[in-house]
Amino acid sequence: MENFVLYNPVRILFGKGQTANIDGQLPKDARVLVTYGGGSILRNGVLNEVRTALGTRHVVLFGGIEPNPHYETLIKALPVIEREGINFLLAVGGGSVIDGTKFIAAAACFPGEDKWDLIRHREEHPVQAALPLGTVLTISATGSEMNSAAVVSKAETQEKFGLHSDLLFPQFSVVDPAHTLSLPMRQVANGVVDAFVHVVEQYLTFPVGAMVQDEFAEGLLRTLVDIGPRIMADPSDVDLRANLAMAAMLALNGLIGCGVPSDWATHRIGHEITALFGLDHALTLAIVLPHLLRDQQVYKRGKLVQCGERVFGITAGSPEERANAAIARIEQFLQQMMGAIRLRDYGITLDDASEIWRRFEVRNWHQGERGNIDGKAVQRILTAAL
Amino acid sequence: MENFVLYNPVRILFGKGQTANIDGQLPKDARVLVTYGGGSILRNGVLNEVRTALGTRHVVLFGGIEPNPHYETLIKALPVIEREGINFLLAVGGGSVIDGTKFIAAAACFPGEDKWDLIRHREEHPVQAALPLGTVLTISATGSEMNSAAVVSKAETQEKFGLHSDLLFPQFSVVDPAHTLSLPMRQVANGVVDAFVHVVEQYLTFPVGAMVQDEFAEGLLRTLVDIGPRIMADPSDVDLRANLAMAAMLALNGLIGCGVPSDWATHRIGHEITALFGLDHALTLAIVLPHLLRDQQVYKRGKLVQCGERVFGITAGSPEERANAAIARIEQFLQQMMGAIRLRDYGITLDDASEIWRRFEVRNWHQGERGNIDGKAVQRILTAAL
Repeated sequence: MENFVLYNPVRILFGKGQTANIDGQLPKDARVLVTYGGGSILRNGVLNEVRTALGTRHVVLFGGIEPNPHYETLIKALPVIEREGINFLLAVGGGSVIDGTKFIAAAACFPGEDKWDLIRHREEHPVQAALPLGTVLTISATGSEMNSAAVVSKAETQEKFGLHSDLLFPQFSVVDPAHTLSLPMRQVANGVVDAFVHVVEQYLTFPVGAMVQDEFAEGLLRTLVDIGPRIMADPSDVDLRANLAMAAMLALNGLIGCGVPSDWATHRIGHEITALFGLDHALTLAIVLPHLLRDQQVYKRGKLVQCGERVFGITAGSPEERANAAIARIEQFLQQMMGAIRLRDYGITLDDASEIWRRFEVRNWHQGERGNIDGKAVQRILTAAL
Repeated sequence: MENFVLYNPVRILFGKGQTANIDGQLPKDARVLVTYGGGSILRNGVLNEVRTALGTRHVVLFGGIEPNPHYETLIKALPVIEREGINFLLAVGGGSVIDGTKFIAAAACFPGEDKWDLIRHREEHPVQAALPLGTVLTISATGSEMNSAAVVSKAETQEKFGLHSDLLFPQFSVVDPAHTLSLPMRQVANGVVDAFVHVVEQYLTFPVGAMVQDEFAEGLLRTLVDIGPRIMADPSDVDLRANLAMAAMLALNGLIGCGVPSDWATHRIGHEITALFGLDHALTLAIVLPHLLRDQQVYKRGKLVQCGERVFGITAGSPEERANAAIARIEQFLQQMMGAIRLRDYGITLDDASEIWRRFEVRNWHQGERGNIDGKAVQRILTAAL
């Protein structure tokens, strides 16, 4: 096991009706910017719950944060914050709204002229201050409600990058599984796959003898493989949603990644697909992951065999056969949740995709737990994913 | 799943050499009371590591905190804190030192005359303020390094009770598995059993469909059952100690207990045995647990069957047979770790033990996840444990 620091001060208020309890979580005189996305919270009652809980506090709404939140949209919140004297941000939505709000929180306190520097030049411009924020989650997927990371896209340059800082932890997050019942099923499936791949990125690397982290990762994978199809078959089962909410939150709150190598190459390639072609984040992960695992099978074999046995019950065959069988089961699960998961299914040609490996080469990127996912590897992976 | 609040702001610095990093975790001008137990840290180098890390800060030592820390010992720290202008407590030791230091932290800020009121009358006197504290862990067992609870004994009245408060979370905890290598093996075994029973108390109750919490609890139990005997056979294996450190920390940091019923009757009975007869905490748990499980088998059957299958691989027989087989495996594990685990092995007669069920009756206690562990149940359990 590698050395690590584990720190996560987010207060999770989990369960039915918890939105009412945010009243005790922010100052009575807070001036609150409520951020949201396409407006479903205006229709499904969640905004009303939030407004009631905030009572007489000064509340300003800032909607229209799109999936894969755009820098260009988010910076429009800054003059509102200044004009209204906002001192608390409350993100009501899924990972995109929460990620976007984290960026707003940092940008509002960033003295530099170009706020994109916080993302694109994050090493030179680490977050030094941020507005406090809370969240009311409406989609279980990214785990952003319980971590300090945010991913933001810039439409102008077709870029998608992340930042993280201890200053960007939400002070609290309401996770009420009932809030997710009105979601379109495509978004629910996206959430299951997003959480699944978050676990895989921190688990299917190479063994370092971290028994507890492995047990927890495998427990999350088994849970997601079990409940994903059941939720699709019975969208009204709130108990299944509660388990999904737990799994997605714990998939990326820092715990299972403690002291173990992590990969994140599937995410890096997926971010490029989204930035260039606008595909849903989870869909890009489902497209990339099986082929990345096949490409790296020899390096990841130890963990693939372990995953096969403990998650999918695969115990027969040589290590190579078992590793391949595990990848096949993962691919089958992703297909089951997402439907079509090849680039060509979405009208993307190999020529289109070549921009991605070109970017890897231009930026001299070497991703993955072994640093061996370079432009050439991406070319192999996306060719297989065509 | 039940509603819950999950909050744990402790910063864990995990791994070899992390003690050096406490320098960045407390103010440069902190006046630090370093609390410790019997003095092993003076001999094994840990105190030197701590002193080096604290640099030129004003440091005062307060040693002699005994196992099951005594109120009478702990309050002696209060005049030292006042005289020396102490504004930070650094506990260097195991659960007893850390628990005791949490009590000192609260007592130093408690205006009442009788500091025991914080424990014995905790409902009327909740913790309102506490000195900040950090910890350097030397025994993996109680999880106190990552929670807000403390258990303190009063020698005068032979009482042992807990308190907890968000104000008692350590600001940071150093968990360096190498620190545990010089421990007597009895203490190591105690730690394994303590962690094991912590998990059991939050898991072997009744099912509420909390899939992730169950998966995590079962993962911790499998890990402890696996590594416990291996550590006893190879005390020098620091990787096994690292896994024990992870398991013990996560057994009682609030996570696996989220949204599920908890029992704690084994602890309540065990605390009485320690308070009256001075037995090691873990030993009392090992004495009580199998008989409590047998006594409650019919109520706990669902989870016992699940535990049998997922932790011990028991798949044959009727539900009752499988539940009993799971209890037998738990008892076997506890014996393997602790040796003799009957009251009479420690010279305790049924007449001696009768004081415990008398206390349950006098206090009108109804413990356990169903509130059905009363004086009569304790009498049955301790009679079987004789």
